[in-house]
Amino acid sequence: MQKVKAAIVGASGYSGEELVALLARHPQVEIVALTSRQSVGKTVAEIFPRMAASSIAGMKFVEPSADALAKSGASVVFLALPHGLAAEFTAPLRKAGIQVVDLSADFRLKSADIFEEFYGEKHPAPELLADSIYALPEVCGNEALKDAALLACPGCYPTSILVPLVPLLRKQLIDPTSIVINSLSGVSGAGRKADVLLLFAECNESLRAYGAPKHRHLSEIEQELSAAAGEKVMVSFTPHLVPVTRGMISTIVVSPLKGADAKAVESAWRDAYGDRPFVRIVPHLPDSKHVTNSNFIDIAVREDKRTGRLLLFSAIDNLGKGAASQAVQAFNISRGWDEASGLT
Amino acid sequence: MQKVKAAIVGASGYSGEELVALLARHPQVEIVALTSRQSVGKTVAEIFPRMAASSIAGMKFVEPSADALAKSGASVVFLALPHGLAAEFTAPLRKAGIQVVDLSADFRLKSADIFEEFYGEKHPAPELLADSIYALPEVCGNEALKDAALLACPGCYPTSILVPLVPLLRKQLIDPTSIVINSLSGVSGAGRKADVLLLFAECNESLRAYGAPKHRHLSEIEQELSAAAGEKVMVSFTPHLVPVTRGMISTIVVSPLKGADAKAVESAWRDAYGDRPFVRIVPHLPDSKHVTNSNFIDIAVREDKRTGRLLLFSAIDNLGKGAASQAVQAFNISRGWDEASGLT
Amino acid sequence: MQKVKAAIVGASGYSGEELVALLARHPQVEIVALTSRQSVGKTVAEIFPRMAASSIAGMKFVEPSADALAKSGASVVFLALPHGLAAEFTAPLRKAGIQVVDLSADFRLKSADIFEEFYGEKHPAPELLADSIYALPEVCGNEALKDAALLACPGCYPTSILVPLVPLLRKQLIDPTSIVINSLSGVSGAGRKADVLLLFAECNESLRAYGAPKHRHLSEIEQELSAAAGEKVMVSFTPHLVPVTRGMISTIVVSPLKGADAKAVESAWRDAYGDRPFVRIVPHLPDSKHVTNSNFIDIAVREDKRTGRLLLFSAIDNLGKGAASQAVQAFNISRGWDEASGLT
Amino acid sequence: MQKVKAAIVGASGYSGEELVALLARHPQVEIVALTSRQSVGKTVAEIFPRMAASSIAGMKFVEPSADALAKSGASVVFLALPHGLAAEFTAPLRKAGIQVVDLSADFRLKSADIFEEFYGEKHPAPELLADSIYALPEVCGNEALKDAALLACPGCYPTSILVPLVPLLRKQLIDPTSIVINSLSGVSGAGRKADVLLLFAECNESLRAYGAPKHRHLSEIEQELSAAAGEKVMVSFTPHLVPVTRGMISTIVVSPLKGADAKAVESAWRDAYGDRPFVRIVPHLPDSKHVTNSNFIDIAVREDKRTGRLLLFSAIDNLGKGAASQAVQAFNISRGWDEASGLT
Repeated sequence: MQKVKAAIVGASGYSGEELVALLARHPQVEIVALTSRQSVGKTVAEIFPRMAASSIAGMKFVEPSADALAKSGASVVFLALPHGLAAEFTAPLRKAGIQVVDLSADFRLKSADIFEEFYGEKHPAPELLADSIYALPEVCGNEALKDAALLACPGCYPTSILVPLVPLLRKQLIDPTSIVINSLSGVSGAGRKADVLLLFAECNESLRAYGAPKHRHLSEIEQELSAAAGEKVMVSFTPHLVPVTRGMISTIVVSPLKGADAKAVESAWRDAYGDRPFVRIVPHLPDSKHVTNSNFIDIAVREDKRTGRLLLFSAIDNLGKGAASQAVQAFNISRGWDEASGLT
Repeated sequence: MQKVKAAIVGASGYSGEELVALLARHPQVEIVALTSRQSVGKTVAEIFPRMAASSIAGMKFVEPSADALAKSGASVVFLALPHGLAAEFTAPLRKAGIQVVDLSADFRLKSADIFEEFYGEKHPAPELLADSIYALPEVCGNEALKDAALLACPGCYPTSILVPLVPLLRKQLIDPTSIVINSLSGVSGAGRKADVLLLFAECNESLRAYGAPKHRHLSEIEQELSAAAGEKVMVSFTPHLVPVTRGMISTIVVSPLKGADAKAVESAWRDAYGDRPFVRIVPHLPDSKHVTNSNFIDIAVREDKRTGRLLLFSAIDNLGKGAASQAVQAFNISRGWDEASGLT
Repeated sequence: MQKVKAAIVGASGYSGEELVALLARHPQVEIVALTSRQSVGKTVAEIFPRMAASSIAGMKFVEPSADALAKSGASVVFLALPHGLAAEFTAPLRKAGIQVVDLSADFRLKSADIFEEFYGEKHPAPELLADSIYALPEVCGNEALKDAALLACPGCYPTSILVPLVPLLRKQLIDPTSIVINSLSGVSGAGRKADVLLLFAECNESLRAYGAPKHRHLSEIEQELSAAAGEKVMVSFTPHLVPVTRGMISTIVVSPLKGADAKAVESAWRDAYGDRPFVRIVPHLPDSKHVTNSNFIDIAVREDKRTGRLLLFSAIDNLGKGAASQAVQAFNISRGWDEASGLT
Repeated sequence: MQKVKAAIVGASGYSGEELVALLARHPQVEIVALTSRQSVGKTVAEIFPRMAASSIAGMKFVEPSADALAKSGASVVFLALPHGLAAEFTAPLRKAGIQVVDLSADFRLKSADIFEEFYGEKHPAPELLADSIYALPEVCGNEALKDAALLACPGCYPTSILVPLVPLLRKQLIDPTSIVINSLSGVSGAGRKADVLLLFAECNESLRAYGAPKHRHLSEIEQELSAAAGEKVMVSFTPHLVPVTRGMISTIVVSPLKGADAKAVESAWRDAYGDRPFVRIVPHLPDSKHVTNSNFIDIAVREDKRTGRLLLFSAIDNLGKGAASQAVQAFNISRGWDEASGLT
């Protein structure tokens, strides 16, 4: 079988590095180009010493240009770029008939207005929004991803939040007005950028909430929760930065409807995810260290009988199921392959 | 001025060590005895190498016995023991007329039944409950602590939660049925005990909720919140273990009453804490690293205009304001001294 | 092809867990038994939540008994036990004709006297010493491992030290009396045991040398260095405990012979390791984070022209190349398979 | 008593912050100016939230200018600046008769040529070198510091290395050609600068040597060792970056002369440091966590009887005894005060 030729743009960030590592050993993929503005001319081995013995160790990073990407022969381009920049690449790539798997926020929102509200700038390519799909496989389903040309991969926080919540809203087991979410994220989630706030000596022995009450990811969280509930949903969401490199957990407090209990929640999860290989309904409270370097999401539920509320818990690797490996999973499905291909 | 003679029981744990360090340099205190079952006969310098040059470096740990403590001449005994054990010491010490500052949970609850419900065992000395005071100075006030003979020092979680919430409930600014609390704690909070779950290799790169939905500290949190509200209050409380040695933050989501906004919250806090040296109302979201090794609690508020909720934030050092230094603060007040004595 | 049936004894420690994960996805191996005294009756999913979706998630831990192991049909047993205990299993297993891959120190030393000197107890099965092979593939060579019945897998420190040094001693490029070694180890190297010294709050923000000047691993280090040099070699070796979960680096200072420079060192390494898939001679100073979760060892050399000395550097994952994955590598070779089977 | 007016230049870095905290509570000092280019106009509370309740919480950072510093009335200026920049301030300040306590490398070396060799640029003010004193109190002695006008405070690595070695070289107990030093440093030692290599996600779970074989600090280490030995001394020195915020340990391997043993070493140390409050000769191997947030240096010795070598160990806080608190100690001595003033 001929391998699919793939390029990765913005490959030297944390999500980019993860994508390179995953696709380099993907049985159906051949990497044909890697771009990174600051690493042009350097080899994979130089920039990612972990991969010094990989088959692509000698491949050089090139200047990112939509033109060059088209010429590389790639039939799919993964974009691991900051929001705004990704859209600039997407238009010409799509025009050239190349599939785009975008890890940025540029095509996650259906509404350019909401993009502007949350990102503080005009959407750079609103005409493409209609063609994109919010590529959270467990939520959108495999059918929707089949042959998709523009995959908008979800953010890490949304992934950890939507997987436990969506089936419960779809089945009207919980009150959509009652949702309070607290999430904890590892520092790699902020990207590989020279920022004093992300220094080891700033993050180590430090616990802090940030971005409250209106973190950018809230926009896609609410878009998808609203779609699931069939009505406008607004939630309280507080992210926290904690000193781990990789890992993310979310703790969600909700009020049940119609007396839904933990059993009803687990039953709804099993109905929704029973055949999904990467969702694990676990008996213990999820621990991020059990999912790092994997595409798993662990979820659990507890009843708080005293207050009548339900507690939902999830854990993912922010760079795995929260970014790179989930992008590969969605890409696999779009190609009609086993969704776990290259991921185990 | 003659110094007050103090003994510390259970001195080799994390809170105990912190107490020893604080009292060793307290201008009005002289340490006359230190006990620790597993360290009997060893010196302070051996057990706490940090203190190798302290004036008490050569003092030896002795067997814990109420008798020996009475004979030591101590007029105050600090108990840094597990719950249950503390009560055993308290009765004879109180009989001997010695002031007890207890850092355990034994005398925090007014109700022996609630103790049994949350701690799973009969209260060991219910007759002493009436004499104890829940020694959170900013909540109980200095008058209540004056000459108190049995100080029940609050737990770390309760401290981080009660300080921001109590003034708002007293002023009826928030809906007591709406409170959802998420807290993050450093690992030292679990004590210096040989437990595989607390190993470095288990806690590092790990994020996990635990103890939900009915952590033991919930009992004292609700006791004090109910007292502040003048009605029975029940809350959702989820603690999380995160890889820092010291530090604790709490994020509290509440619904305001009567249109109370962030200004009203800050105003209530200023009314309650304007003259308290250890409460800092800060403009940024509190970060645990700004309060470690101190007795400060940093608090902040944000309005979530979209959901109409208020977000309250706090940060403390779980071994400082959450344990040892708060015990010293309360003790200072009980003696009529400056509450900051020995703490700056 | 029929898979080789394997059992793992002491499977619930850190090296054991790593072995289970590696062998569970090894294409030529089928795990037939797992033992762990404290986990008897529990499933793999319960003890290793990371593996909750693995094909052996439901397999139960059984009591460790040589008898039961023989009956399991295993043709190879991996021992991930403390020293002393491993030998007790080895004798009956070998008598039953079962191959033993031992990760403990019990069969690493050729001399029972040196074992006693360094481990403070009589060797438990000296009659088996002659049959064992010190299974560091890059040092002993593949031929020596072919069909080996008792593989004594090296310790983590020795692995990180012998790989860079042995070729230089064999070629007489360095002065054997000049060797000064400093190594840094992650905390998982001390095992999953309830020890206060290994608590997060003890190891975090802590740097300490330990075990100097006569750490147990020194015995095997010197045995192998002496064999390489053809004369008795003694070295200075100081291990340090540092706050990472996984990872080990060694920095070795030596005096060159016959004017050997960095080029000569790299040339000797290339001669020795040019065809070995897991040794990477890197241009940068090795960083443990580039080898964690892998079987690689990264090595590098620098000339200190001012003092005339050479500096050698290495990095491994103490649980990977320093323990479990190296054991699998040696086992692969013993069976005549590709040494990288199941390791990439 | 009138307090001495002090200014701190470059106050927003890690050493600067530490200096501000120490001098703000120094009983004989009044801070009159703080400079930081990037923080001009901001208050101490904004830049250092830890100090939000300090007496100088409202003081504003000003533009660094020698002129403004002179006008501030400061009789001493502490410079916490990168090398090169410090010299630019020193000349005009000295001309204005202001005492300078410099934490940079600019005035540590007696030779402008060696400065150029190690720092790769011409010395910016060689005429001032003769007037400076290498302000390591335990090495230069208190007399030398009395009324000193230009204090060149040692680097962190040199402090941890010189204190254990100097008395042994002075007494000719060790072979000056035999010294091999390995040091481990926390990440704060690299400063508060936006550098990708210092990000949490780069340093966490990472162990790496760097700067070998010719780290800049080697120049001052060898200058002072040579002075102590009375002959030119060259050493092997390898620093390592490890994931702690604060803390530094050094492990030094040396060959004894004239059969000097551990007792002789301890005796030499006691002779040299018996009356120094900040040097602790400890029985255990020093652990950085016992000296963080202090001005102590812990030192220990072990005999390696097998190789005939001696092992020396030390631990400091790189921002404490390795930078800010040592600067205050030296300054105290220069003023004729108790050297521990403001440090306990």
